[in-house]
Amino acid sequence: MRFVDIIEKKKSGQALNKAEIDFWINGYVAQEIPDYQVAALLMAICFQGMTIDETVWLTDAMLHSGDVIDLSKINGVKVDKHSTGGVGDKTSLALTPMVAACGAKVAKMSGRGLGHTGGTLDKLESISGFQIDMEESRFIEQVNEIGLSIIGQTTQVVPADKKLYALRDVTACVNAIPLIASSIMSKKLASGADTILLDVKYGEGAFMSDVASARTLAKTMIAIGKRLGKDTRAMITNMNQPLGNAIGNALEVKEAIDTLHGKGPADFTELCLEAGSVMLIQAKLANDHASARKMLEQVIQDGSAFAKFAAMVKAQSGDVEELYHPEKLPQAPVTCELTAQESGYICDMNALSLGVAAMRLGAGRALKEDQIDPSVGIVLHKKVGDHVEKGDSLATIHHRTPLSQDFMDACLAAYTFHETACEKPQLIEEIIE
Amino acid sequence: MRFVDIIEKKKSGQALNKAEIDFWINGYVAQEIPDYQVAALLMAICFQGMTIDETVWLTDAMLHSGDVIDLSKINGVKVDKHSTGGVGDKTSLALTPMVAACGAKVAKMSGRGLGHTGGTLDKLESISGFQIDMEESRFIEQVNEIGLSIIGQTTQVVPADKKLYALRDVTACVNAIPLIASSIMSKKLASGADTILLDVKYGEGAFMSDVASARTLAKTMIAIGKRLGKDTRAMITNMNQPLGNAIGNALEVKEAIDTLHGKGPADFTELCLEAGSVMLIQAKLANDHASARKMLEQVIQDGSAFAKFAAMVKAQSGDVEELYHPEKLPQAPVTCELTAQESGYICDMNALSLGVAAMRLGAGRALKEDQIDPSVGIVLHKKVGDHVEKGDSLATIHHRTPLSQDFMDACLAAYTFHETACEKPQLIEEIIE
Repeated sequence: MRFVDIIEKKKSGQALNKAEIDFWINGYVAQEIPDYQVAALLMAICFQGMTIDETVWLTDAMLHSGDVIDLSKINGVKVDKHSTGGVGDKTSLALTPMVAACGAKVAKMSGRGLGHTGGTLDKLESISGFQIDMEESRFIEQVNEIGLSIIGQTTQVVPADKKLYALRDVTACVNAIPLIASSIMSKKLASGADTILLDVKYGEGAFMSDVASARTLAKTMIAIGKRLGKDTRAMITNMNQPLGNAIGNALEVKEAIDTLHGKGPADFTELCLEAGSVMLIQAKLANDHASARKMLEQVIQDGSAFAKFAAMVKAQSGDVEELYHPEKLPQAPVTCELTAQESGYICDMNALSLGVAAMRLGAGRALKEDQIDPSVGIVLHKKVGDHVEKGDSLATIHHRTPLSQDFMDACLAAYTFHETACEKPQLIEEIIE
Repeated sequence: MRFVDIIEKKKSGQALNKAEIDFWINGYVAQEIPDYQVAALLMAICFQGMTIDETVWLTDAMLHSGDVIDLSKINGVKVDKHSTGGVGDKTSLALTPMVAACGAKVAKMSGRGLGHTGGTLDKLESISGFQIDMEESRFIEQVNEIGLSIIGQTTQVVPADKKLYALRDVTACVNAIPLIASSIMSKKLASGADTILLDVKYGEGAFMSDVASARTLAKTMIAIGKRLGKDTRAMITNMNQPLGNAIGNALEVKEAIDTLHGKGPADFTELCLEAGSVMLIQAKLANDHASARKMLEQVIQDGSAFAKFAAMVKAQSGDVEELYHPEKLPQAPVTCELTAQESGYICDMNALSLGVAAMRLGAGRALKEDQIDPSVGIVLHKKVGDHVEKGDSLATIHHRTPLSQDFMDACLAAYTFHETACEKPQLIEEIIE
């Protein structure tokens, strides 16, 4: 088999077979096929696409390029969720204790992302002492004991994806649906859970700009998951404005704690309840959506969801005091209000601009080596649909270094005002099973 | 400027500007842009194409990536021709002495090609002692003295093309018209001649499989040549059967000598006369086609075209005796007849199969390092449109190693016979100015 023939085949619009896809992934990981040939194939895939069969074979080949986590020693149904990522997305922090409190098992290995704001691990590390490094055996023990653990990757999971993603990033091949779907699903499948819930976000602050592409991506990932034997479902959610109010690591932990106490922002709470309902049905802990939702409302009300979060933090050496007294979490030295320069209804907020602003404050990484400042970020007081008067505070900026006029202007530019009332956007577009 | 943005721009169907194309070629030659990024761009170009402006800028950037030959010290109009290559194409050997005998100046630097049969340099080296290495000053002197010299490249001409071509070859990006056009034209323009005649071949044995693509390629190259200030014209010719009768280096030199004596195959002679007529008009040595053709017929008839060839061979240390007595050229130790297994009219010959057969005999290179055997090859006795009786010789195989049945079968499989008469194909489809 010659790799140039495989490139030619895809270029001419034909589907590759399993042997050809295995040859590609195995050869690439073994450094027998050079980057430049894979780059040409990736670009051809951007134009010609891949069938579901091809995408399943690609995912399967990537999945088996490295270690596959064995969670079989954990009793019960192991549930997992994945978000395609968005600004203010702290869902894992609140959602996983909620479903764990209802009896689902959550054994989550996370990677660190390069993004506007930190990933789940960065957010958890805002809590003093929280350990994300753990032996796999201890990880499994903890999930058996308390039902919940979130740690960093201990093993070489999907090395093919590391190589392919790095290459896609520098060759303008990031946004092809079969490549996105196989990248996400190979990592999810390698993580070993029994069920997968995908939160596919669309809009300014998301990977997919429109709802139609988000739906195609979701359906592709569901097809892969099912073909590879996992109960896989998806939600399509709107990321045209930030999720919840807090953007920034410790600020998001606080908001997650509020939400576990039943005092979180309406949109974020709704997302957790809806996602949790699907996960409880997947875990066969509830028969229908209404009863699942009731269980989740119950664990918030009786404090067991928060207690589950505290139990995980304690088990992973975090300072539980900070959860009971969130003001002890890292605090930025200075705050400053972003005030409205005009009166009117907010009819649009650019999530991406606000995410980038939070990154400029130090809440995210522009480069892999960058250090995150857990304390800084933005807390929104007004969202799309709200009315503001000139001079009202739109948001509080938590910062360490002085803010430039340019920075404040960029934040203000994220807002669009109308004189007439604007509808609040619908957060959850659809749930696909 | 980030190269990934240039890839993205082309991928999305936008035209690149001159600064972006210069950044690409300069950065690639300087090894600042890696192969994998260029591979992705090349594949995007295969799908999205390039405008004439982009193709001109690409050619210009490639042209200036290395040395540009200065032929200004040669008096008179320097003419050049280029064939996209085909089986049995020995045109340069006969055509250049013909136009030189009419007063045009031919200062030709050739590269060695990787092909079924050798390139012009390999064919000339069949002549004992023939030197293709020469100082540039001596080369120019020789052209001023006798009007004709063909040598190997002495300087680093178009290094960008060397890198790009090697990359295209292994990434299935060979057959995109803007890439082919810029590759050919950058090298032709770097060779320094005043006029360029392109012989764009189509058919089984050629780069372009159909006449429409050949025409598009020709028009693209003419547009480039004109925009960069050279009189550029093109012929579209049929390469569905080999050109002339001889395939193989010394055998082709013999056929060229025959043609210079007015005794060459009809199709090859016609091609030389037609191409030569265009070149004489380009050189302003003739006003119209009819008078140009008459001049060429004259230099064959009076022996001055052959004398010009002999003068070049002598000037480049070749054994002129071999031209006067072609039987002294390298001869294969054994010959064998390929006989027809049925009677009928030849309605198709697969030029590519016969080219590959000649390569298997040793007439061409499969790998750059392969040594060519100048003596071996195939001489056709019948061509498309001819009638044969079972047992007639279709061709004589000149060989050194024993011939396998498989080899003979492959040669026979190149022929298709019909019971009813087939038309002789038209060699020259069109001349485009």
